[in-house]
Amino acid sequence: MERIDFAKGDGLVPVIVQDYRSREVLMVAYMNQQAWEKTVRTGKAHYYSRSRKGLWLKGEESGNFQEVKNAFIDCDNDTLLLQVKQIGGAACHTGYRSCFFRKKAKKDWKVVAKRVFDPEEVYKK
Amino acid sequence: MERIDFAKGDGLVPVIVQDYRSREVLMVAYMNQQAWEKTVRTGKAHYYSRSRKGLWLKGEESGNFQEVKNAFIDCDNDTLLLQVKQIGGAACHTGYRSCFFRKKAKKDWKVVAKRVFDPEEVYKK
Repeated sequence: MERIDFAKGDGLVPVIVQDYRSREVLMVAYMNQQAWEKTVRTGKAHYYSRSRKGLWLKGEESGNFQEVKNAFIDCDNDTLLLQVKQIGGAACHTGYRSCFFRKKAKKDWKVVAKRVFDPEEVYKK
Repeated sequence: MERIDFAKGDGLVPVIVQDYRSREVLMVAYMNQQAWEKTVRTGKAHYYSRSRKGLWLKGEESGNFQEVKNAFIDCDNDTLLLQVKQIGGAACHTGYRSCFFRKKAKKDWKVVAKRVFDPEEVYKK
């Protein structure tokens, strides 16, 4: 199997996450080798959190897991694309389905989606 | 207008590029502030080439320009999503429509698309 080039990005590759049916882009995250292996083994998306500096099972707190349907690699072997089934309806920690919920308007970024969940309810301290 | 956070990625943000109709993910590239401003001004996607270390008008060599239909920013302000009309039918320099033309199979990455153009014809030396 051709290897994912983790070296170019200091051990990390960007991962584009897309709804497997609608093709909506849900989020972008990062994987290291271990996150990739765990994802392949479990079928659930695992990422590397750059802020928390550690492995992260998407949905571990919120319950909004991602079941991986397909994975693609780009021409340079340094970027991945996952097609997932988004459990719970929302990928973004702000409660929107997609992290890309703001669209460029003339003078501003305009919110063009509705919240699926209330983050204060989901991420209880 | 809320600012794009170029600082986090040393002056660059990743840009996901998606067909504006089919929502197929075509490629991932990077922008600096200047590439973003040129993109907004001209309506044609400009990127920053990390290998060539310079501004790059997508399609300047191949003729495969990208007309930007919509732009979205993510929750962290550090990733962009463009919806484009891909001129010439292919975004990838290898001649495939999408850079993500290989899909994970059991033991390998398997090519799942057909070439739109012959790179040797398009990128004449």
